[in-house]
Amino acid sequence: MLGLMQDHPLLISSLIDFAQRHHADGEIVSRRVEGDIHRYTWGDVAKRARQVANALDGLNLAFSDRVATLAWNGYRHLEIYFGASGSGRVLHTLNPRLHPDQVVWIANHAEDQVLCFDMSFLPIVQAVHSRCPTIKTYVALCDADKLPTDSGIPHLLSYEAWIGKQPSTYVWPTFDENSASSMCYTSGTTGNPKAALYSHRSTLLHAYAAALPDVMCISARDAILPVVPMFHVNAWGIPYSAALTGAKLVFPGGAMDGKSIYELIEAEGVTYSAGVPTVWQMMLTHMKTNNLKFGTMTRTVIGGSACPPAMIRAFNDDYGVEVLHAWGMTEMSPLGTLCTLKNKQLKLPPDAQMQIRLKQGRAIFGVDMKIVDEAGNELPWDGKTYGDLLVKGPWVLGAYFKGEGGDPLVNGWFPTGDVATIDADGFMQITDRSKDVIKSGGEWISSIDIENIAMAHPAVMMAACIGMPHPKWDERPIVAVVKRPDMAVSRDELLQFFEGKTAKWQIPDDVVFVDAIPLGATGKMQKMKLREELKNYQLPSL
Amino acid sequence: MLGLMQDHPLLISSLIDFAQRHHADGEIVSRRVEGDIHRYTWGDVAKRARQVANALDGLNLAFSDRVATLAWNGYRHLEIYFGASGSGRVLHTLNPRLHPDQVVWIANHAEDQVLCFDMSFLPIVQAVHSRCPTIKTYVALCDADKLPTDSGIPHLLSYEAWIGKQPSTYVWPTFDENSASSMCYTSGTTGNPKAALYSHRSTLLHAYAAALPDVMCISARDAILPVVPMFHVNAWGIPYSAALTGAKLVFPGGAMDGKSIYELIEAEGVTYSAGVPTVWQMMLTHMKTNNLKFGTMTRTVIGGSACPPAMIRAFNDDYGVEVLHAWGMTEMSPLGTLCTLKNKQLKLPPDAQMQIRLKQGRAIFGVDMKIVDEAGNELPWDGKTYGDLLVKGPWVLGAYFKGEGGDPLVNGWFPTGDVATIDADGFMQITDRSKDVIKSGGEWISSIDIENIAMAHPAVMMAACIGMPHPKWDERPIVAVVKRPDMAVSRDELLQFFEGKTAKWQIPDDVVFVDAIPLGATGKMQKMKLREELKNYQLPSL
Repeated sequence: MLGLMQDHPLLISSLIDFAQRHHADGEIVSRRVEGDIHRYTWGDVAKRARQVANALDGLNLAFSDRVATLAWNGYRHLEIYFGASGSGRVLHTLNPRLHPDQVVWIANHAEDQVLCFDMSFLPIVQAVHSRCPTIKTYVALCDADKLPTDSGIPHLLSYEAWIGKQPSTYVWPTFDENSASSMCYTSGTTGNPKAALYSHRSTLLHAYAAALPDVMCISARDAILPVVPMFHVNAWGIPYSAALTGAKLVFPGGAMDGKSIYELIEAEGVTYSAGVPTVWQMMLTHMKTNNLKFGTMTRTVIGGSACPPAMIRAFNDDYGVEVLHAWGMTEMSPLGTLCTLKNKQLKLPPDAQMQIRLKQGRAIFGVDMKIVDEAGNELPWDGKTYGDLLVKGPWVLGAYFKGEGGDPLVNGWFPTGDVATIDADGFMQITDRSKDVIKSGGEWISSIDIENIAMAHPAVMMAACIGMPHPKWDERPIVAVVKRPDMAVSRDELLQFFEGKTAKWQIPDDVVFVDAIPLGATGKMQKMKLREELKNYQLPSL
Repeated sequence: MLGLMQDHPLLISSLIDFAQRHHADGEIVSRRVEGDIHRYTWGDVAKRARQVANALDGLNLAFSDRVATLAWNGYRHLEIYFGASGSGRVLHTLNPRLHPDQVVWIANHAEDQVLCFDMSFLPIVQAVHSRCPTIKTYVALCDADKLPTDSGIPHLLSYEAWIGKQPSTYVWPTFDENSASSMCYTSGTTGNPKAALYSHRSTLLHAYAAALPDVMCISARDAILPVVPMFHVNAWGIPYSAALTGAKLVFPGGAMDGKSIYELIEAEGVTYSAGVPTVWQMMLTHMKTNNLKFGTMTRTVIGGSACPPAMIRAFNDDYGVEVLHAWGMTEMSPLGTLCTLKNKQLKLPPDAQMQIRLKQGRAIFGVDMKIVDEAGNELPWDGKTYGDLLVKGPWVLGAYFKGEGGDPLVNGWFPTGDVATIDADGFMQITDRSKDVIKSGGEWISSIDIENIAMAHPAVMMAACIGMPHPKWDERPIVAVVKRPDMAVSRDELLQFFEGKTAKWQIPDDVVFVDAIPLGATGKMQKMKLREELKNYQLPSL
């Protein structure tokens, strides 16, 4: 027997309808590529998203056709989010940090029909357009009078002229909630990039879950600055959860330096932010140098890669900002776990609480997880035993776009490629990426643990631990270090710094000082590249 | 094109699985009918819910067969919630405050197969069982040695013996998320009661939404005491949202007096509670009389009927508890709106904030609402214009069980029977029930407004405003008042109290002092009954 409640599909259009109807004057503030501050409301977003939908209809795009973007976090990007998905098209957020050849490969694989881009990314578009035969329409996110006449891109449209002539009325279509709504390619450290294809259903369930008190805790009282880019797994779903709650949004545009981000936080009364550790490091450096404090910020979610303990402490102790450690993946929409304490843990002393906060956190309802050994047997949740982390749930990937890579699931579970422990309270901690874990004498050494210790040294700005081949031990760890400007530390001092902080056999065999550690398009350290750079390196013991 | 995320139906069994896996030691504390305090964990609930499922399988119940309960808020009731719905049966929470004849009518209409009841409701079961032919199995929620031998109920089982012999392993079945999960009959002031039939999907979407920061704001750090009964629209969904977040639950059992509730709140570190105004009135009276304060309570949701402003003020000013005004219906699972402030309203002075808090609040994402005139035209959101309130959404009723009452929807919208205003910020305020509004000289007078003024008088414990027929004005309002013990107020003093607080023509024509105002099974005032009691009353002006 079926229940007798109303039948409404979960559609992204209902998010923007809701924001318009219930939070019409809720603010959206953007630092534009043009440099100035743009300010309008959820009511305006809704109106212009409908103009985008009409404009897309005018291009005779079919249902599920891909609308690509190459854009920073900004209001026009937000309008395209809702206009494209709401009208039944698939939003495809291209990553502008990729090499043009990769952009070409991805745009062709996705069969993008339209490409909307920020003017700062014009050089990328100029470099790729002749090799993207499926893209029929190029739209520059600017006013008509800012459109370059000599771009070399045929029939280039200005976004404002393109949508400006469209009516702002549009009846959002109703369709199967399992329809594709947006897509995001993984950074693809090995092989070609593969795409997660999100649905309206997965996006809305994720939007509900992401706003929960134990997750990002988003309400109509928040002003949110997503540092995490909208081309990186839909800015972790923040645009959707913000519409669902009517929260104020503050977009940093392309000005991702510490000073610009800090100033925007203060000027707009930002209460909450989210981003990867590398961006926060820049902001904290700026704040420390200039002896600055926060006025309204209360919490920040840090994810994308494991957050160094020193950063969690700095945010909390020096700036009164609660750091919520998070973990997720492109294949998970992206949120999987968030580190918020349980009732009983509130009574623990600060140090014990910090030990919990260093973990990636508890599963959000909607995500189930387990750790398994190499034979696939489930391992105990004791906080010590580590194994391969597998997940499942309605916003976890079932298959990649076009079936790339075959069936990725193992008995219905998605293998994350992470190695983790889970404690008795369900707090998961990433020990390493499966491919980065260092196997020494039959035991595993977590490269992340080693990096965290190194990062705690005041002279270390960035550290990457990799395994080097060793005839006796199989692998031995070394750590590549970028020093802070004007600070000094020697190899021996740093190796000594590890004493007592980890088991003797886990202490790296060597420190290699480097000018920079290669970062990928999403700000993550690219250890494969680092290994390449150090291919002539030899362990001191050999 | 469909998205490629995993396909998992939204099922109630996944809630209890989640609570067990991630919050196994989370506490559930119950004051039992036996009088003592019972204490165990979410892990135990899950284990025993599986025993319930096995026990139901042992009765050869079919999918969707109804499992009825007559029970207070307690741990065994919680186990049946998950055991019945999780195994594919429909949980039917009977209201023990109904007359036995009504219980018989409802049990037969629902075709209940099993009835589980608290021992305090044995007299009801004894009064009804011979007239409930569909009920094959009666289960008393008690230990085997507490089972009465002379109950007169054939084959009466003790719950503990019944589930005790069952294995605690059970694989929850997977099925269509639109399947019926539970049902609740409306109090039915006119005609026969009608049932809302909830689905697993509607229940889970409601559970996500109810836990949001702008709604009940439920996290793993909360200890929740639902004063609202589990037989009243599933305790407003709290059992489900608690499982979804791992919150601690504290159940008051049958001890619903002010003293017992207060003591449990203090003993168990309750942070959050929810209930109808009448219960809170008793608790506040107890606290005031004994000069008591709260230790851990931070907020309470008040709904079920409009909350008197004096109560909101008392909670906030005297006890530091934030009152969140809520509105919903059995037909809405039940939550529709909740009154939490927006960002811009936080800067308003306390008085202006209070004016907002008196409203029933903003729509939760998932519920859309509108007000219409008698011709069905949508009315403006100006905070003044009032009209019939209509709602729609995935947890709003589409049809009543067995099609009773025909198609209740008007162009896809459910008419709530409430009259309301909505302001420009989307805050809805109930002006009255459509049937209670007083029509005087072509204008409408809100009976609730009049009651709120009367309730603000220190000598008034309860007030009910009803319209009396008048040859010239059509109707004129009078107010029936229950005085506080040991306090005095005269008719003329009370009428004078209205001066300046409302328009002259809205001031009641008369005050009638009564010993009690008839309350329905859910604690709401029964004005139809009051009108019957006052049928020989004559207006002073006639």
